[in-house]
Amino acid sequence: MFANSESNAGNPVADVHEGLLGDTDLMFTDRMPFNEVDVVFFCFGHGKSEAFLKEHEIPAGVKIIDLAQDFRIRGNHDYVYGLPEIHKDAIQACSHLANPGCFATCIQLGLLPLAQAGLLTDDIAVNAITGSTGAGQKPGATTHFSWRNDNMSVYKLFTHQHLHEICQTLNELRPQSAPAVCDTLNALPAEGEITVDFIPYRGDFARGIFCTEVIRLRGAEGSASNPTQETLVQLFKDFYRDAAFTHYSDAAPDLKQVVGTNKALVHVEKFNGNKVVVTSMIDNLLKGAVGQAVQNMNLMFGLEEKAGLNLKAIAF
Amino acid sequence: MFANSESNAGNPVADVHEGLLGDTDLMFTDRMPFNEVDVVFFCFGHGKSEAFLKEHEIPAGVKIIDLAQDFRIRGNHDYVYGLPEIHKDAIQACSHLANPGCFATCIQLGLLPLAQAGLLTDDIAVNAITGSTGAGQKPGATTHFSWRNDNMSVYKLFTHQHLHEICQTLNELRPQSAPAVCDTLNALPAEGEITVDFIPYRGDFARGIFCTEVIRLRGAEGSASNPTQETLVQLFKDFYRDAAFTHYSDAAPDLKQVVGTNKALVHVEKFNGNKVVVTSMIDNLLKGAVGQAVQNMNLMFGLEEKAGLNLKAIAF
Amino acid sequence: MFANSESNAGNPVADVHEGLLGDTDLMFTDRMPFNEVDVVFFCFGHGKSEAFLKEHEIPAGVKIIDLAQDFRIRGNHDYVYGLPEIHKDAIQACSHLANPGCFATCIQLGLLPLAQAGLLTDDIAVNAITGSTGAGQKPGATTHFSWRNDNMSVYKLFTHQHLHEICQTLNELRPQSAPAVCDTLNALPAEGEITVDFIPYRGDFARGIFCTEVIRLRGAEGSASNPTQETLVQLFKDFYRDAAFTHYSDAAPDLKQVVGTNKALVHVEKFNGNKVVVTSMIDNLLKGAVGQAVQNMNLMFGLEEKAGLNLKAIAF
Amino acid sequence: MFANSESNAGNPVADVHEGLLGDTDLMFTDRMPFNEVDVVFFCFGHGKSEAFLKEHEIPAGVKIIDLAQDFRIRGNHDYVYGLPEIHKDAIQACSHLANPGCFATCIQLGLLPLAQAGLLTDDIAVNAITGSTGAGQKPGATTHFSWRNDNMSVYKLFTHQHLHEICQTLNELRPQSAPAVCDTLNALPAEGEITVDFIPYRGDFARGIFCTEVIRLRGAEGSASNPTQETLVQLFKDFYRDAAFTHYSDAAPDLKQVVGTNKALVHVEKFNGNKVVVTSMIDNLLKGAVGQAVQNMNLMFGLEEKAGLNLKAIAF
Repeated sequence: MFANSESNAGNPVADVHEGLLGDTDLMFTDRMPFNEVDVVFFCFGHGKSEAFLKEHEIPAGVKIIDLAQDFRIRGNHDYVYGLPEIHKDAIQACSHLANPGCFATCIQLGLLPLAQAGLLTDDIAVNAITGSTGAGQKPGATTHFSWRNDNMSVYKLFTHQHLHEICQTLNELRPQSAPAVCDTLNALPAEGEITVDFIPYRGDFARGIFCTEVIRLRGAEGSASNPTQETLVQLFKDFYRDAAFTHYSDAAPDLKQVVGTNKALVHVEKFNGNKVVVTSMIDNLLKGAVGQAVQNMNLMFGLEEKAGLNLKAIAF
Repeated sequence: MFANSESNAGNPVADVHEGLLGDTDLMFTDRMPFNEVDVVFFCFGHGKSEAFLKEHEIPAGVKIIDLAQDFRIRGNHDYVYGLPEIHKDAIQACSHLANPGCFATCIQLGLLPLAQAGLLTDDIAVNAITGSTGAGQKPGATTHFSWRNDNMSVYKLFTHQHLHEICQTLNELRPQSAPAVCDTLNALPAEGEITVDFIPYRGDFARGIFCTEVIRLRGAEGSASNPTQETLVQLFKDFYRDAAFTHYSDAAPDLKQVVGTNKALVHVEKFNGNKVVVTSMIDNLLKGAVGQAVQNMNLMFGLEEKAGLNLKAIAF
Repeated sequence: MFANSESNAGNPVADVHEGLLGDTDLMFTDRMPFNEVDVVFFCFGHGKSEAFLKEHEIPAGVKIIDLAQDFRIRGNHDYVYGLPEIHKDAIQACSHLANPGCFATCIQLGLLPLAQAGLLTDDIAVNAITGSTGAGQKPGATTHFSWRNDNMSVYKLFTHQHLHEICQTLNELRPQSAPAVCDTLNALPAEGEITVDFIPYRGDFARGIFCTEVIRLRGAEGSASNPTQETLVQLFKDFYRDAAFTHYSDAAPDLKQVVGTNKALVHVEKFNGNKVVVTSMIDNLLKGAVGQAVQNMNLMFGLEEKAGLNLKAIAF
Repeated sequence: MFANSESNAGNPVADVHEGLLGDTDLMFTDRMPFNEVDVVFFCFGHGKSEAFLKEHEIPAGVKIIDLAQDFRIRGNHDYVYGLPEIHKDAIQACSHLANPGCFATCIQLGLLPLAQAGLLTDDIAVNAITGSTGAGQKPGATTHFSWRNDNMSVYKLFTHQHLHEICQTLNELRPQSAPAVCDTLNALPAEGEITVDFIPYRGDFARGIFCTEVIRLRGAEGSASNPTQETLVQLFKDFYRDAAFTHYSDAAPDLKQVVGTNKALVHVEKFNGNKVVVTSMIDNLLKGAVGQAVQNMNLMFGLEEKAGLNLKAIAF
């Protein structure tokens, strides 16, 4: 096992990840002994994984898990999009994996059952509040405690980069009868296409993403295109029955139930005869990043899916 | 001046409102010398103002400002709904005033220019995050610090009681050509009616409401029913040009710009050719409650509208 | 395994401890099948453990771990005070254990090496800031989010009930040459006795205790009674060398390094030739309560001391 | 009136101090029209005021208020140390004023009555917790929200630069009979000197300083050197009787009673027959900086001392 870092080479990992003090003596190294390991995790900034691979040779037998967004969109590469709730077989079989984004994971988990059931037939209102760790380690104006504490604001309205992967998944999952989802980062919606209207909020907490997804159903209540609340709840429970970390919550859940864990919670309610509100939530650093990466590693190596991820939520 | 309280009679006001220590020697009293004052503020729980008036006689010359929701909906009473941005003349002329709700104030200020312009032609997605002071003084599970800190959750989805007054205003303000707004607390929407799809969130801060309102425009961009972003911005600026406390912010505003003040900030952006996102924000205890009550008192008595309300925001 | 609760009998444990949703199907029961278990944890309010034992028979072979303060002070009972850093042998041999208090654990861990070395020769200034979970689940004025958020205050100055167990330990550990520590809850200090001057603060966070302990050394610097900083650091490192969860931090530690774990961190610095400042910190719910209880259980049953306690800090 | 800023020249002041949006149209300028104003506030970083004065001529009739620490220590200059609670006459008469530091203001207000009464006869334990705004606007590791939220830590133990001005005041105020206070930043304490043992804490809130000061009295309780609690309370009440912003609180105060105001609150209790605990608190940005600067300006110009400073606390 090695942890590579140019800037921190020679220093204890626990000096940087200070919560590990007493847990490990691992040191950062500037070496990259790829021939001594089974898997490599890329934790570069977005866009740098591809560049790195051009300059470095990773042995064919070494699996790669990329936490950046470089390979999340299908293209001229063999990376599997690592959302275990829908791609478990492909993940188990793959050698190269693109780990989903944090917002993307949380929003998709709220929409997957509806997408597969062909119920996404109108524009989707997504409001998601993220903790400050979503903004990375580098200090800046909107992560300054004096500004962010007790504050609330929005950013990247309708233009967050995770829309790419969300739209890709929704389009792959929808039945032919359902409308296409327009990736509005690429083009204006064409006639008949629907959009994901995503507003990210900066929350005044450090960890977690709390998301609501609102959809409008078509047709008479009780018809196939407009199921009852009971049917919707069952749809979600069935969809996530075998998921290792994604659970349906009968009660309205709150964010701290997942913070500190690799879990996702989802909950669905119906209003006014045709509106569906889903709430979904994850810890952005775990299920939204390294936790899901470890979950994917477990699947790629035939390990127990929860190995190393039996974590205790910060709620008590 | 008197501050009536049965439970605190004989105690200094600053013992209860501890931020006033050193500012006032006023004591709570169980007396109600209505004949010695010009105006009475009712700060009862909802539903108790009407009961109180049946049991007590307020002299005809004494003005009443009710902070509860008892008289916010038009009916068999002479209370004016006290939203100065649209009802200034009526407020100046009235003796009895119903002070708007906190969410209701914030959401209406985001929607008023669009409503008057007839641009509310489809269901309105409203997401509003409130501080814990919105839940009142009485301690409970969702205001326990251990639970609420770093947490996020939703409540009263699509059923918050402020929908009544919001729908009343939107219907009064809309041109005949625009669709009616259904008060979904009373009935399911009829064909052709639109709804206010309001999701309240419990935020992990004490003061303030931060709100986004998303609407879908109809018709070709640039047409009367689908104005450009520039036109929308101008619409908001014109609408609030003379407002004492509501300002259009050219930059995306954040909540702490209004916390501690009677100000409201609004901001509008357009996306995907037909979606409009408004952000609106207030301090729920000031513009959302007692600040607006004082503003209304100033108008009712012909005082300077800002008297006593030149407050400094907590942002610096 | 059973979780007894009169008020919650028949409900899932995860309904109350909501962070466990998806982790366990355990239900609360009103049964108390003591003959089916190896160990019982008492989680009563203080003072109720003793009363419970008078009314219920626990089989002789069943070990008891009491989280209340009923048996922490030596007396007419056989409970061992369960601070593994000093009482490991007794814990391993005992059947009945009194789990230390949260403040008491944090403060003692900061003082133990100095006490044993006979360096506590003058009054000890202790300032400890606790999260809101230290105040329990019942909502009240000082745990109301609206009050506690961004706030700071002190309580039980010089009179906190944990002084009893702190003084007991310091007196047991000190060499004969060092002055006695007066339990000021019982009596004023006599001539020659020293005191623990403990100020608890209510912090505006949910979990954790952060503590500073300041002592004044006697004699010339470098003498036995006034060791150098290097000697003091070595004293702490040696004292905790074999501790499973208490670590010396070379750098100044911060609270979030321990929150979410059973770890304690300690750090020592010297100033002005004769003042020693120790910082010590724990998660009050883990090392300060149930985590230490599990650690003690592991020791009592000959299990691996860290079993079930390999937790990840909330810091990243 | 002008607000000079090289980097922001030409921009609205409300763009930087965003809480002022809607309150002022003032623009930053790179001009320095000293001959058009009555007073200049220096808001440079520490050490730059003196350098600025060497390069710029301020007309003799223009008063100067320096918020940096350049002139707080008596020396070869005519700046008056602007703590109105003790220097009111000198402030009213001066043209050049050095505004006290934030910690220095809070700690001195807790100690002044005791110092003047000659009761500071042993080392003083000072623990003060500050909000993140005390660390300035520039983002850094310890003001990153992800790090600071829910966290607690200490810094500059026993070595904070405000010790200079604190010790200067205490020495000027003490009667001849009381021991000298050693400025430990300059030298180790000599025989018979006492020290201010100051531990600053980084709090997880934005505004405010909450401080405890613990002193040990000498002699028999009730003697002149060891007054009763009643006498101590009266001492504080008398000392601050005429103070415009510093109030004695009969109840234990909390930080939010002063945040958002220019007020200071102090409270005193006695324990164990000879220990005195004072709590003192201010808003570091107001009474600890610009608020006190305005208060001083009011005094320097013969204005009402509270002019412009009738602010409402964030507590409600």
